[in-house]
Amino acid sequence: MFIGDDASYSETERRLENEHFNSVVRAFKNYRLHALTALAKRRRDLAGVSGENHALLDAMLRPKIDATEQCVLQNAAVIGALIEGHGADEDVANGARKAHAVSETDMDKVKSTLRQFARDWSEEGRNERRTTYEPMIAELEARFAHLSVEDRGRVKVLVPGAGLGRLAFDIVKRGFSCQGNEFSMFMLLGSHFILNRSKHPKQFTIHPWIHSFSNHLNADSQLCRIQIPDVAISDIAGRAEFSMVAGDFLEVYGSPEHEGAWDAIVTSFFIDTAKNPLDYIDTIRKALKPGGAWINMGPLLYHWEGMERETSIELTLEELKSIVVAKGFVLENERMVRTTYASNFAGMLKYVYDCAFFCAIKT
Amino acid sequence: MFIGDDASYSETERRLENEHFNSVVRAFKNYRLHALTALAKRRRDLAGVSGENHALLDAMLRPKIDATEQCVLQNAAVIGALIEGHGADEDVANGARKAHAVSETDMDKVKSTLRQFARDWSEEGRNERRTTYEPMIAELEARFAHLSVEDRGRVKVLVPGAGLGRLAFDIVKRGFSCQGNEFSMFMLLGSHFILNRSKHPKQFTIHPWIHSFSNHLNADSQLCRIQIPDVAISDIAGRAEFSMVAGDFLEVYGSPEHEGAWDAIVTSFFIDTAKNPLDYIDTIRKALKPGGAWINMGPLLYHWEGMERETSIELTLEELKSIVVAKGFVLENERMVRTTYASNFAGMLKYVYDCAFFCAIKT
Repeated sequence: MFIGDDASYSETERRLENEHFNSVVRAFKNYRLHALTALAKRRRDLAGVSGENHALLDAMLRPKIDATEQCVLQNAAVIGALIEGHGADEDVANGARKAHAVSETDMDKVKSTLRQFARDWSEEGRNERRTTYEPMIAELEARFAHLSVEDRGRVKVLVPGAGLGRLAFDIVKRGFSCQGNEFSMFMLLGSHFILNRSKHPKQFTIHPWIHSFSNHLNADSQLCRIQIPDVAISDIAGRAEFSMVAGDFLEVYGSPEHEGAWDAIVTSFFIDTAKNPLDYIDTIRKALKPGGAWINMGPLLYHWEGMERETSIELTLEELKSIVVAKGFVLENERMVRTTYASNFAGMLKYVYDCAFFCAIKT
Repeated sequence: MFIGDDASYSETERRLENEHFNSVVRAFKNYRLHALTALAKRRRDLAGVSGENHALLDAMLRPKIDATEQCVLQNAAVIGALIEGHGADEDVANGARKAHAVSETDMDKVKSTLRQFARDWSEEGRNERRTTYEPMIAELEARFAHLSVEDRGRVKVLVPGAGLGRLAFDIVKRGFSCQGNEFSMFMLLGSHFILNRSKHPKQFTIHPWIHSFSNHLNADSQLCRIQIPDVAISDIAGRAEFSMVAGDFLEVYGSPEHEGAWDAIVTSFFIDTAKNPLDYIDTIRKALKPGGAWINMGPLLYHWEGMERETSIELTLEELKSIVVAKGFVLENERMVRTTYASNFAGMLKYVYDCAFFCAIKT
């Protein structure tokens, strides 16, 4: 198996705090109840409308809420498969009692995981992937153009912040060896599920856009079904090494064993997850071989900005690049790339990022 | 004066809850302390960086934080002019003591008001205004093409959700009589300030993008100064009637005096502020003259969605339009218009809306 079988995965789990792991599993398990509770609130709001507007709205919205409920159950079934065998079973028996133990933030991450599946592993997400992943892979191929595709397996590529694993998967599919690294347990459970448990394309059906009733053109696009994965995972079997490693990027790759170990490091929407981007830059530089390439694509939406109890250092793109150069990189192929991120493909609101693309060569 | 002098404005104030008014004034007054406190946190985070990275970052970020502090003081001076004479003076003496009495939500609204000034009243906002306001005004002019510009003053146009007043101002500038209606006291204080207290173009300088350090290309664009207003307010003196009315749209315009009183109602980014859009549609229809035009532009980002204690009815665009037709309107000139909203014009992240534009004629 590409990212270790369930046994070796369990070992990875143990490396992370058990309590945190359980809280994430609990969040996934509470999805069904949480989403149905939100629909019950919508039914109450609808029932509270008076006069002739009630009849008008009821005829329109009640069937849609009923259909949304079916979509929730469908999502919950996929989530059930995702967390199957991942402990915290004591919570299943009485979901209702445990509902309030799950934070809104964690429930948002469950729903966000569904949207990330659409971005990384559906046909509908192809456009976003073409815009963001494809230029990074093209850069990688250009850097190692002197190797035949068969010899690319010797090239060791690291993808920190690998999320649900698609970028790392696509890099392996092109023949490179690739290791994904991820800190979020939501993402780790998600990538494990799709990479190890999907047997064929379009095996699972999810409805990622049902949780917000805002900015939809019509009910069909609101309820739309997304089938995942869009590809056969087995397509990459035996081509090159592929692994996923759980843990904090600085901790894992700051260790001596990773010094000068990587031919290329590919970061997508990652550097702004740093509390201090200089720590990331230092670790990337240390982990790269001399002449190695750091290929980056992403905005600068610093994740820790404004958090009262956390350190957060934020740089503009110009400042970041000048630091990268000061740290001993040469910048090449700099450009801006406009893209959406995990957006409702048919919705009326999109978050559009002007991403910084560059290739930084370790001198 | 166009929206009443300070005396008549005070009367408007009294119509709203005094306590709420005071809390908004208090939020504006606390801006300086709040923004300086955030900068002090940035200085602490910077001081906490150790090793050679400290020197590297300090040389880069300390001058920027110093410059940002000057921008905060500049913003605070404009805000001071904005709330001058608006009571709640007892809080001024000891801002520090009162800092925690202001909610994060209210502080966000203060900062959002600064961004709205850039959207509505600066040269830099012209592009957004051309995309959203201009098609609505063009539709209005087409509807009343049989009138000479001199006779347009007889046409009564209502703009619910008038915000900082620019759309209503531009409608008056084209010769129509226009009344803006607004519920938010942040927006009302802001529109009163710009419409009644600015003596000449570019009188005030603000820095609307300094509060987030994320997604900036460079320090210059982060600190950039915006001058407001871009036009002479006196340009519209004597042309047509112009007024701003404070209060809840349903309460004010659902009253008998407004029945069949308006030739046109123009809504920009407004219908999704409804707890139930059907109430807005009913009130719009009642307030329009027979044959009157409702011109709409906006997304469907329902403001009350997901709020536990509030009713919220959300419709897709298709559902909304079918209700509009069922309520006795004929839809014309339907199209989608893509635009940003109060975004950092030079930033790396933009919220892009596919807005619904239509003209609904009351049959």
